[in-house]
Amino acid sequence: MTNHSVIIKECLTRDIRFDLKEGEGSDAVNQTPQYSYAVCKLTTNRQIQGTGLAFTLGAGNELVCEAIGYLARFIEGREIEQLMAGFGAVFREMSNAPNLRWLGPHKGIVHLALAAVTNACFDLWAKSRGVPLWKLLLDLSPEDIAGTLDLSYLEEVLTRSEVIELLHKNRRSKSHIEQVVRTGYRGYDTSIGWFNYSNAQIQQKVKQSIGQGFTALKLKVGADEQERDIQRAHLVRDAAGEHAQIMVDANQRWSLPEAIEVCQKLEEIDPYWIEEPTHPDDISAHRELARQVHPLRLAMGEHIPNRVVFKNFLQSGAMSFNQVDAVRVGGISEFITISLLSKKFGIPVVPHVGDMGQIHQHLVLFNQLYVGHEPLFLEHIPHLRDYFKFPAKLADGYYQVPEEPGASSDFKDSIMK
Amino acid sequence: MTNHSVIIKECLTRDIRFDLKEGEGSDAVNQTPQYSYAVCKLTTNRQIQGTGLAFTLGAGNELVCEAIGYLARFIEGREIEQLMAGFGAVFREMSNAPNLRWLGPHKGIVHLALAAVTNACFDLWAKSRGVPLWKLLLDLSPEDIAGTLDLSYLEEVLTRSEVIELLHKNRRSKSHIEQVVRTGYRGYDTSIGWFNYSNAQIQQKVKQSIGQGFTALKLKVGADEQERDIQRAHLVRDAAGEHAQIMVDANQRWSLPEAIEVCQKLEEIDPYWIEEPTHPDDISAHRELARQVHPLRLAMGEHIPNRVVFKNFLQSGAMSFNQVDAVRVGGISEFITISLLSKKFGIPVVPHVGDMGQIHQHLVLFNQLYVGHEPLFLEHIPHLRDYFKFPAKLADGYYQVPEEPGASSDFKDSIMK
Repeated sequence: MTNHSVIIKECLTRDIRFDLKEGEGSDAVNQTPQYSYAVCKLTTNRQIQGTGLAFTLGAGNELVCEAIGYLARFIEGREIEQLMAGFGAVFREMSNAPNLRWLGPHKGIVHLALAAVTNACFDLWAKSRGVPLWKLLLDLSPEDIAGTLDLSYLEEVLTRSEVIELLHKNRRSKSHIEQVVRTGYRGYDTSIGWFNYSNAQIQQKVKQSIGQGFTALKLKVGADEQERDIQRAHLVRDAAGEHAQIMVDANQRWSLPEAIEVCQKLEEIDPYWIEEPTHPDDISAHRELARQVHPLRLAMGEHIPNRVVFKNFLQSGAMSFNQVDAVRVGGISEFITISLLSKKFGIPVVPHVGDMGQIHQHLVLFNQLYVGHEPLFLEHIPHLRDYFKFPAKLADGYYQVPEEPGASSDFKDSIMK
Repeated sequence: MTNHSVIIKECLTRDIRFDLKEGEGSDAVNQTPQYSYAVCKLTTNRQIQGTGLAFTLGAGNELVCEAIGYLARFIEGREIEQLMAGFGAVFREMSNAPNLRWLGPHKGIVHLALAAVTNACFDLWAKSRGVPLWKLLLDLSPEDIAGTLDLSYLEEVLTRSEVIELLHKNRRSKSHIEQVVRTGYRGYDTSIGWFNYSNAQIQQKVKQSIGQGFTALKLKVGADEQERDIQRAHLVRDAAGEHAQIMVDANQRWSLPEAIEVCQKLEEIDPYWIEEPTHPDDISAHRELARQVHPLRLAMGEHIPNRVVFKNFLQSGAMSFNQVDAVRVGGISEFITISLLSKKFGIPVVPHVGDMGQIHQHLVLFNQLYVGHEPLFLEHIPHLRDYFKFPAKLADGYYQVPEEPGASSDFKDSIMK
C-alpha cells in the first residue's frame, strides 16, 4: 500500500428524513410519503468520506440504519482499491451474512442496508480517484467491472464471460463519449402528476414542465373511481399536446382484473407506458396483463428487490421497460448486473429514482456508453434539490453531466452532521 | 360488549434467542443458526395474553420486534371477537401501513412483524374462547373464516365465494374429526440430518428416529463437494431401509445447473422430495429444474414470503409440495389463504416449522378436516421442547392433538418474563 491508500475506518449511519409540501410525492398507495434516506457514511484515513444511500418513505428508516451496522465488519479496515477489485465476492458475502440472510434473502430491510453500503463503497472509490462515478465506470476494463459483480443465481442466463464480451462489444469510442458528455441525458418529469394534486395544479405543472423543456411527463393513477384516472389522463394529454410522452403510474394499486379494465380505457390517451399496474411480486399477473393490453407497454422495477426477480420478469416478457433502482436493489453493482441482463434480453433500462436522480445520472451514462443501452430518458424529481451538496443540474429538460468526484450522493454538511 | 369481552390493552414484544447444541440446525447455507423468535405479546383487560411468533436465526431479531411496534396501533384497544370477525380488512390495513409498506411490500422484516401480530391475535382469540386453535378454526363457519382472510391480489384465482364453497365442500363430519383427534397427525423427523453432523452421528440419529416410530426423515445437502451429498444420502437410505421416505434439503445452495446435476445423482436413493434446491425467488429456475428432473418432485416454501409469490409458484407447476410457514408469511390467516389456494391447485401442504410445529400442529388439522388436504406429515424439530410451556407431544411418530387453549405458542413464564 502506498501513501495514497484510502482505508475505510468506520461504517457509520445517518437517518435522514425530509417532509414534502402538500401533495408532493403522493400516489395511489403511498398517500403521505416522507422522502427518507438510510445513509451509510464511510470514514477513512484521509479527508475523503463515502456516502451511500438507501431510500425509504420514513417509517422504519431507522431499522435500515441498524441493519447497516451488521454489514460494517465486512468493509471496515479494507483498502478501497483492493476491496473494489474483488467487490463481487464481498457483496456475495454480505448478502449471505450468517443468520441475517434469513430476514431476506436479498429483499426488504436487509437488502436496502446492503444498497447503502454498496453505494458508499462506489462513492468512496470514485472520490479516492478524484473522478465522478460515471467516469470511473467508463475507465474500468470489462474485467474490472465483472470483478465488482455478484452473478450468483444467474448462471444459466449471464456468465462472467458474457459480461466481459458484452461490455467489450458495446463500449463507445472516446469521441462518442465526449459528445454525450457535452449534450447530457434527457430527463422526464415525474413531479407534474402527484396523486393528491388538484386538476388545476396538474394543468399548471404540465405547462411549467413543457416550458422547462421536458417532453415526457408522468401522471399518478389508481383512484378508487376509475373516472378520476381517465379524466386526469385526458387533462394531461390535452395540456401537454399530442407529441408529448405521457406515462401513467398506478403504484401497484390494481388487481389483475381492475388493471385490464382501466388500461383498456387509458389507451385512449396513448400512454407511453403503464407503470406498476399491480403487485410487484406478481410476474404471472403482469404477463397476463401485458398479453391482454398489447400493444400497450408495461414498466416496473422500483419494488423489485434483486437480480433473481428481475431475471424472472425479463424472462416472462411482461417487462417492456426496466425501472431498476440502485437504492432498492443491492446498490450500484447489482444495478449494473441487472442492466447487463436487461441488455441481453433487449429491454431498455429507465431507472426509478429513489435517489432523485443523483446517482442514476451517472449510471445511465454508463448504460448508454458501455452497455449499449438506448438513451431514452431519466426520471427527474426536483423536491430535494436544496438538500444535496451537488444537486443534479438540468437544462432544457436535459441532465447535465456531473463534474464533482463521487456519486453525487452527499447531502449538505449541515444535514449530514 | 359483555362482561366477558376480551379487549387488547397493549402490544408488547420479546426478543428471544436460543443457542443450539453443536451441529444442530445447521444447513448448507445457514451454518450456525440461533433459533430465535420475535414475540408479540398482547395484554388484555383479563388474565389472558396473546402470544404470537415470527421466526428468525438471531441476527436482526430485534429489528423485527421494533417493526412490530409500528403495527400496535391497529389492534390496541380492539375487542377480540369484533377484531377477528373483520380481521381480513385489518390485516390488509397493517400490510399496507403507510410508508412502512415501502420496506416490503409483504416481505422481509415488516412481514415477519405482521406474522407475529397476526399469530398473537389468533392465539388470543382461541384462548378467549377457552379452546385450542384447531378447535376454534373447525368450529368457525366458512363465512367466518373468509372474514379473517385478505384475498387481495388473488382476484383472478381465488374469490371469497370460492373460499366459502371450498370450505363447505371439504368440511369433515363430526365423527371423522373425532377419529382424527384420537389418532393424531403423522410427523417426519428433520433433526436426523443436520449439515454439520458427522456421518456417524447421522447413522445413529436415523436408527434412533426409526425406533421412535418415524418413517420419514430429512437430510441436509448442498455441500461444496457433491460426493459428500451423495455419500450421506446413501448412508441415510441404508440406515433407514428401502421403505422409509427420505427428503433431501439444499437450503437454496445450488445454481440451476448445479441443481440439475446433483438431483440427477441423488435420484439413486429415490428421494421423496428435493427441498429448496435454488433461490426462493427463482420461479423460472424451479420450473426448469422440475422439468429436467421429472419425476423427482420439488418442495419449497419456507422462504416464500406472501400469497402472491405462492400463487406464482403454484401456477408454474414447479411446486409439488407447498411448505408454507405461518411464522414466515403474514401469520395464520395468510397461511390459511395459501392452503386454500394450494388445495385449488391440487398441491399438498406440508408446512416448514419455524415454530418447531407448535402452531402448525393445529393448522394441519384444519387443513385436513376443513380444507380437504391429504394428511401427509408434519415436520418435527425437537430442539426447543424444554422452552415451550406446552411442547408438542409426539407418540410413535405421531403428533398428539393439543388440548390447551390457544395456539401452543407460549414459552415458559421464566422465558417470557
